[in-house]
Amino acid sequence: MEKKKNILIIGGGACGPKTAARARRLDSTAQITMVQDELLISYAACGLPYYVSGAVASRNSLLVRNAAAFKKISNVDVLVGTRVNSIDRALHKVNVTSLAEEKQYTLDYDKLVIATGANPVVPPIKGIDLQGIHILKRIPDADEIINLLSGSVNKKAVIVGAGLIGMEMAEALVARGIEVTIVEALERILPAVLDAEIADLLANHMKSKGVTLKLGQKIVAFEGEGGRVRRSITDKESIEGDVVILSIGVRPDSKLAREAGLDIGTQGDILVNEYLQTSDPDIYAGGDCVANINLVTGQKTFVPMGSTANKHGHVIAANITGGKEKFPGVIGTACVKVFDFNTGRVGLSEKQARDAGYEVVTAMIPGPDKPDYYPGSKEIILKLIVDAKTRRILGGQGTGPGDVIKRIDVLAASITMGMTVDILSDLDLAYAPPYNTALDVLHHLANLVRNKLAGRTTGVKPADVKDRLDKKEDFVLLDVRSRPEWEATRIEAPQALLLPQPKLPEEMDKLPRDKEIVVMCRRGGRAYQACCTLKGAGFKDVKFMEGSLTCWCDDVCGRPVL
Amino acid sequence: MEKKKNILIIGGGACGPKTAARARRLDSTAQITMVQDELLISYAACGLPYYVSGAVASRNSLLVRNAAAFKKISNVDVLVGTRVNSIDRALHKVNVTSLAEEKQYTLDYDKLVIATGANPVVPPIKGIDLQGIHILKRIPDADEIINLLSGSVNKKAVIVGAGLIGMEMAEALVARGIEVTIVEALERILPAVLDAEIADLLANHMKSKGVTLKLGQKIVAFEGEGGRVRRSITDKESIEGDVVILSIGVRPDSKLAREAGLDIGTQGDILVNEYLQTSDPDIYAGGDCVANINLVTGQKTFVPMGSTANKHGHVIAANITGGKEKFPGVIGTACVKVFDFNTGRVGLSEKQARDAGYEVVTAMIPGPDKPDYYPGSKEIILKLIVDAKTRRILGGQGTGPGDVIKRIDVLAASITMGMTVDILSDLDLAYAPPYNTALDVLHHLANLVRNKLAGRTTGVKPADVKDRLDKKEDFVLLDVRSRPEWEATRIEAPQALLLPQPKLPEEMDKLPRDKEIVVMCRRGGRAYQACCTLKGAGFKDVKFMEGSLTCWCDDVCGRPVL
Repeated sequence: MEKKKNILIIGGGACGPKTAARARRLDSTAQITMVQDELLISYAACGLPYYVSGAVASRNSLLVRNAAAFKKISNVDVLVGTRVNSIDRALHKVNVTSLAEEKQYTLDYDKLVIATGANPVVPPIKGIDLQGIHILKRIPDADEIINLLSGSVNKKAVIVGAGLIGMEMAEALVARGIEVTIVEALERILPAVLDAEIADLLANHMKSKGVTLKLGQKIVAFEGEGGRVRRSITDKESIEGDVVILSIGVRPDSKLAREAGLDIGTQGDILVNEYLQTSDPDIYAGGDCVANINLVTGQKTFVPMGSTANKHGHVIAANITGGKEKFPGVIGTACVKVFDFNTGRVGLSEKQARDAGYEVVTAMIPGPDKPDYYPGSKEIILKLIVDAKTRRILGGQGTGPGDVIKRIDVLAASITMGMTVDILSDLDLAYAPPYNTALDVLHHLANLVRNKLAGRTTGVKPADVKDRLDKKEDFVLLDVRSRPEWEATRIEAPQALLLPQPKLPEEMDKLPRDKEIVVMCRRGGRAYQACCTLKGAGFKDVKFMEGSLTCWCDDVCGRPVL
Repeated sequence: MEKKKNILIIGGGACGPKTAARARRLDSTAQITMVQDELLISYAACGLPYYVSGAVASRNSLLVRNAAAFKKISNVDVLVGTRVNSIDRALHKVNVTSLAEEKQYTLDYDKLVIATGANPVVPPIKGIDLQGIHILKRIPDADEIINLLSGSVNKKAVIVGAGLIGMEMAEALVARGIEVTIVEALERILPAVLDAEIADLLANHMKSKGVTLKLGQKIVAFEGEGGRVRRSITDKESIEGDVVILSIGVRPDSKLAREAGLDIGTQGDILVNEYLQTSDPDIYAGGDCVANINLVTGQKTFVPMGSTANKHGHVIAANITGGKEKFPGVIGTACVKVFDFNTGRVGLSEKQARDAGYEVVTAMIPGPDKPDYYPGSKEIILKLIVDAKTRRILGGQGTGPGDVIKRIDVLAASITMGMTVDILSDLDLAYAPPYNTALDVLHHLANLVRNKLAGRTTGVKPADVKDRLDKKEDFVLLDVRSRPEWEATRIEAPQALLLPQPKLPEEMDKLPRDKEIVVMCRRGGRAYQACCTLKGAGFKDVKFMEGSLTCWCDDVCGRPVL
C-alpha cells in the first residue's frame, strides 16, 4: 500500500488555510497538518481596521473558520498555539513548541509549505517600548488598540507611516473620536502607491476630515510619562498623543527559511519560482513571505496582499498534490477607502514607469462616475500612464468619492493583457445611467492620451502651473468658466484672467498672441475645447490645465471644488 | 484659397452632436451644419426612464447642450425642427423641410453624416392607434407618458416587450404607483440579453416587487373605451390597463439611406465599413442606424447603445476631417438596473456561443460582492461562458443586488483582449474589504471552470435539477446545509435529504453508493466541498448543484433565499 502523502503547512493566516483546504479537495488521503503560532486561524486580517473603527461590530464575524471546523470539513489537523522552531530539510522534519504545554516535538513532512506572512517594521528608536505604541497585525492587536484608545487621556493619536494600513487606521481612529496626526518620512502620503497628483488630492480630503499630516518628517524618538507614550518626536517637532500606531511597512517573515538555508531574495523574501517552489523542491512558500513578478516590468516586487496570498494557496495546493500550476505574477494593484474617497492604483506609477526607462505619456481627467443628472453621481479623478512607443497602458490610478475601483479593475484586466490606449478608447464597457456616463472617464482618458500622442494638444499638470505661478513666470492663466463659478472659487494670481468659454470667439482679441496661455476650467473639458478654439484662431502657444480646478491641490479663493 | 470643407450631419441625438463637436476641434475652418427634426438636440435619451420614474426630477438636467450653445462653443449651425427629405448623392445635396415654416430648401455637403438613430417597433395590430398606447424615444414621449399615467383611471399599465427599455420602464411605472404587467412573446425576460438562469433570477425579483410577467404570450390586439386603451389582448388572455408602453425593440432608421441607394444590411442597418463609411465614400453613418462587428464572433450584430453611438461620433469626426480612424466593434455589453437588482452581460450568451459552434463550458456562482462581515455587502450571481478548446472567455452575465457591473466591465476588457480562464483565475484585481472579497467571485468562477475542464468536478444547473425532480427521477438531492437553514428554507421533494456538511465524514454511510447524488447548499461552496469529500470516499456518481438554493428560481418552502 502506498504511503499517504504528508503535507505540513506553517502558518494559518490566508495562504496556509487556502492551501490546506484545496489540498484536501485534490487529495482525499493525504495527511495534512497546519501549524499556527496564534490561537486563531483563518481570520480576515484585512478587516481589522474596520473592527477598530467599529464599522465591523462583531469580532467573531472576522473569523472565517476555526480549527475544529477545519478538521470536520476538510480533515486538516490544525495545531494552534504552536511555534515552529526550525526546519530540518535533510530529515524532512520540523521542530515545534506547543506554547501552552511548553513542549517541544517534531513533525514529519513530505511536502512543506511556508506561509509565515510578514511582520510590521518596528524601528529600534528611543522609547519604542513605551506602553501605547502598537502595531496592527492580528486580532489581539486590534483588541489592544481599542483598549488603548478608550484609555487615551487627550484623545490624540499619532500614526507613523502613511501607507495603506496607516490610511485605514486614520479613518478608524477618527471614527472613534480621536484626533489623528500622521507622520510620514517621505513628502507625500501613500508614497509607494500613488503619484503625487493623486496622493495630494487624497491628502486634501484627509485634511478636510480633520487629520493632520506631517510629511517629510522622520520619527526619531518617543517620550512618555509613567511608562505610557505622550509625545512622538520627529526631526522637526514634537507631536502630542498617547496612542501611537506603527504602520511603517512590513517585511517578509523569512527567518525559518533563512535559517534552514533556503534562498532569500533582496527584500528578505523567500525566493520561489513560478510554481511557488523554494530552492528546496519539497518546500513551497506563499503569501506575504514571498515576492512576486510584476507582470508589466518582469521584475520581482514585494507587494503583500491578502488576495495574492489566497491565489498562492490555490496554486501551491495543486503543486503539492501532484499537479503543476503556475502563479504568473501581479500588476501592483492596490486600493484603499479613506473616509469618503475611494483610491486605487494598478500597474506602474508614472515615476516607476519613468524609472523603468519608458517614454511616458500621461493624462489626468476628473469626471462624474455616472451622469450628473442621475441621483448619487459622484466625482472620480483618474490618471493614465501610457508607453508612448508601444501605446500600451502601463498604469492607472485614481481617487475621489465616486466609483474609482471599478475603473482600476478594468485597467487591471487591460494592463495584464497588454491593451493599447487605442483599444481602451473603444472598449465596450457596460453603459446605463445608473452605472456610468455614455463615454466613461476611461474613454476620455484614452482619447486625451491619443490626442497628445498625435500632437493635437498639450496638457500641463496643476502642480506645474502652481510652481510657475509661485515663480511669478509670465503667462496667462485663462479661466474659461462662467462668472458665477469664478466668483465662488478661483485661483488668485496676477496671471489669472476670466473669459467664459462661450464669449471666447468674439472676445479672444483681448488675449495676447505673443504670450503662453494656459487654459483652465472646472474639470478640464471646457479648457480643452477652448484650446482648440484658440489654436484654430491662430494662437500658437496654448496649453490646457489637466483636471483644472478639480485637481488643484493648493488653497483656492472660495470653497473647495471637490 | 482653399474652399472650406462643408460637413453636414443628419441627426442631433448622440452620434451627431459628438461628430459635430469633435469635427470642430479637429478642423477650425470647416462649415459644420447639424440637422435635427426635433426641437431639442443632444439630450440624454437613456435617462428618460429615470425622468418618468421621478428619480431624475428635472427635465432640464437631461439636456446636454442646446442649439445656441452649440453655435457659441463649437461654431456648429444647428437646424432644429428640420426634416431631411432626401439625399442627392450625385449633386452632394440634401433636401430639407423647415417644419415650422413649412419651407423646403437644399443644403450642400462635401461630407455627409447620417446619424438618424433607430425607431421603436410599432406592431400594425388592431387598436394600436388608441390613446394611451405609447413608445418611449424622445423627451416629449416621456412627458406624454407621465401625463397618461396621471390620467390613468385604474392605475394599471401593460408593457409590451421585456427588453432593456421594458425593464427600466417597469421600475419607473411601479415608482409612480402603477400596477405593471409585462407581456413578452418569448419564454423569458431580456431574451436577447440573458441566458435563462440569470433572466429567471431577475424575473423572480421583479415578481417580488409586484410586477406581473406574462411570458410566452403574444399581443394580438388592444381594446379601448372612448378612444382610450383599456385592455391588451394576447393570444392567451385579456389584460387590464389604460396605459400601454410599447418596447418591443427598435429598428435602424435607414429610410433616407435606402432611398438614396446606399447599401443596407440584413437587419435594416446602413452598411458601413470599419471607418464607418457607407457604400458612398462621402457619406458616413453611425449610432443606432448601423450595426457593429461583434469582436468575439466577427459577425455583424445590431445592438444599439448610446455609448457606442458616442464612440462612432468620435471616429467619424476624425475621418471626415482628414484623419483615418477605425471603429473595431463591440462585444455586446449591456446592463440594466431593475429595482434593487443590477444586471449585466457581455460577450456571448451560452446560447449564442453554442449556436456559433463553440464547445462550451459554463459556471455559475453566487457570492457576496464584498466580505460578509463588511457593512453593505450584497449578493451577486455571475455566470461565465468559456470555450473549452482555447480556454478563452466567451461571455459573462450576472444579476443581484450587489455590484455586478464592475465584474461585467472587467470581463469586457478581458474578453476584448482574448483572456483565458487561467489568466482570469490569477487576475490581480483591487482588493480591500470595502470593495470585494480576497478572492473575487470572478476568481471562483474561473477556478470552477478550470476544475471542470480538468474533469475534477461536475456541476448541474438548478433548472435541470428541477426538471428531474418534476419527472420524479431517482437520485438523491443531498442538502449539506445546517438543520436551522433547512428548516427555514428548502426544496421540498421526495429525493431531498439533509446531511449537514460537518457530519458528512462520519455519517456518509447513510448515503446510497449505487445512486446518483446531487449535492446542494446555499451558494454552492459547501456542496462543492462535500462532493470532493464523497468522491474521496469512493462515491462514483456525485455532482453539485451550481448556485444551489441562491440560484433556485422555483418556489421553495419557506422564505426566499435572495
